[in-house]
Amino acid sequence: MNEKKTTTNKNNIINEFSLISQIKQQTNLIHKNNIKGIGDDAAVSKIGDEYLVVSKDMLTEGIHFDLTYTPLKHLGYKSVVSNISDIAAMNVKPKSILISLAISAKMNKDHVMEFYKGVFLACKNYNIDLIGGDTTSSLTGFTISVTIFGSEKDKNKIVYRDTAKEGDLIFVTGDFGGAYLGLQILEREKNIFLNHPESQPVLDNYDYVVERQLKPEARTDIVDFFKKHKIKPTSMIDVSDGISSDLMHICSSSRVGCDIYISKIPVHTETIKVAQELNINEMTSALNGGEDYELLFTVNPKHLNLLLEKGFSSLGAIRKEEDGCNIILENQEKKSLISMGWQNKI
Amino acid sequence: MNEKKTTTNKNNIINEFSLISQIKQQTNLIHKNNIKGIGDDAAVSKIGDEYLVVSKDMLTEGIHFDLTYTPLKHLGYKSVVSNISDIAAMNVKPKSILISLAISAKMNKDHVMEFYKGVFLACKNYNIDLIGGDTTSSLTGFTISVTIFGSEKDKNKIVYRDTAKEGDLIFVTGDFGGAYLGLQILEREKNIFLNHPESQPVLDNYDYVVERQLKPEARTDIVDFFKKHKIKPTSMIDVSDGISSDLMHICSSSRVGCDIYISKIPVHTETIKVAQELNINEMTSALNGGEDYELLFTVNPKHLNLLLEKGFSSLGAIRKEEDGCNIILENQEKKSLISMGWQNKI
Repeated sequence: MNEKKTTTNKNNIINEFSLISQIKQQTNLIHKNNIKGIGDDAAVSKIGDEYLVVSKDMLTEGIHFDLTYTPLKHLGYKSVVSNISDIAAMNVKPKSILISLAISAKMNKDHVMEFYKGVFLACKNYNIDLIGGDTTSSLTGFTISVTIFGSEKDKNKIVYRDTAKEGDLIFVTGDFGGAYLGLQILEREKNIFLNHPESQPVLDNYDYVVERQLKPEARTDIVDFFKKHKIKPTSMIDVSDGISSDLMHICSSSRVGCDIYISKIPVHTETIKVAQELNINEMTSALNGGEDYELLFTVNPKHLNLLLEKGFSSLGAIRKEEDGCNIILENQEKKSLISMGWQNKI
Repeated sequence: MNEKKTTTNKNNIINEFSLISQIKQQTNLIHKNNIKGIGDDAAVSKIGDEYLVVSKDMLTEGIHFDLTYTPLKHLGYKSVVSNISDIAAMNVKPKSILISLAISAKMNKDHVMEFYKGVFLACKNYNIDLIGGDTTSSLTGFTISVTIFGSEKDKNKIVYRDTAKEGDLIFVTGDFGGAYLGLQILEREKNIFLNHPESQPVLDNYDYVVERQLKPEARTDIVDFFKKHKIKPTSMIDVSDGISSDLMHICSSSRVGCDIYISKIPVHTETIKVAQELNINEMTSALNGGEDYELLFTVNPKHLNLLLEKGFSSLGAIRKEEDGCNIILENQEKKSLISMGWQNKI
């Protein structure tokens, strides 16, 4: 059960984390081959002499995507990629995918095939087979459910969320905040269009952030990198909800605290420019924006130099649980990470 | 990809079978460990030295269920059971399940937990672990997606749809048409209630058919039976769309024809009684009604006596492809199975 899958519908009365926690409490794994159940990016189950790593995710129209500005091909691509990211976060590369669609009455066969063009492209780019699923009707919106799996021979190579240790360094791949700002640009252009239907969307200056939103990529290259350099992260998660929330998932699962430095958070130059234009703090966007699909991991400090040399960003270090989860601002002030939500100015 | 998952929304312009066929055509399995892709009750993938059998299914409000008369606990139970049935149809018993929910704004946490009560009961009854999934919001209706898997050491024990041979006998478990008539009773009581809100539903005399609709069971006992008696069916499918449609799936996949006898189709006495009351032909309901979740399989004729003795029903036999798929009526008239849909009187 993927605890980090929240929704953008802030009005929904159900706190999903508390719901999942309640479901998890009532779940006892009776089969000893089911090694990891609810509470990570993916579940792990022993099948014969290997370990199946399997994840499942649902995307609903109006919550996860808006068909006004999301091309169906991009949506198909992103649906696959966001799931690949969950398996990569376990240090495994997926090989197989199943997709279920509930198709709204507004869609015809060509629309569905356009969606699948994106699915097939993602499958090709990431070397994955589409092996099953089903299609059905929806009386309302378009709903997508993806199940993805890969396997690993060596149980010890699988990386979980709950194994970070005090003193480990916290690293991230790539940069942050772009996908969220891309969404803001698309929403802005949608609103302009709704008020002035004769207008055309102006997206030329926003290539990077719009692509981060509409056509993200998953970091399976990092799984290869770790293998090549014989590095095993002590914990890992994919950053789909923003650094803040996903790092806190690692900390709460591992029962540790953390210190990260705001100055160390990597943000793309275009992201900074767009943030300024939209009057949004780029660090708030990076910490809380989500959908960047980069990986956040913890490692033994001995890997510091190699990781920095290869372009990864070191954000800080894992601390004792009682020290809490903290962020150190430019002025050296230490703040609780949980207080750095949307309502708080940095 | 589960081709037999059609919907009750007859107005939807998309022909799902033709859509799935188009998707299947564009799918090439690149990993040799993915043994069976789109086109059966479940996909099969080699993981280490075993064979993973995995299926995925989506249920949407208003299409697959009506919350007016479907208790959430029953819905949770049925969501699991209908998926267990897909794995049983491959001659395998599932061990693990993942569930994704898109929760409508009308539902609160107690509603969701009531749904999970049914999930947990089905998991307990069928010896299955809930190992993952996710929850999200839905702007519209409640949507359920289930992924289920089991594994089998011996590749040759897995039974597919496309391996029926001329001369094989066609058998079914249980009886048919009950679930469909149960649905008609529930719909009738709903309409009475909508017109006369002071009325109470009268379901006392419809226990059997209503239970077949609201709380079906999956025939994993048949997997045990085959194992015990060392019988391997030559093909198998679970009957979720009615005997007619599902038998034709076996025939088209296996490139064979069939003759079945209408007099041999097992129908429960209460089903007959309710059919008479509702002025529905019970055989039309058995052939086309769906949701009975029994198994239909073909076997070598040498197993005839044992299977009859154990209470299975022999419907007829597999013929050459060019002979077509036929049903022999009480008056010995032979009709094409495809012509026996809802519009045709028997």
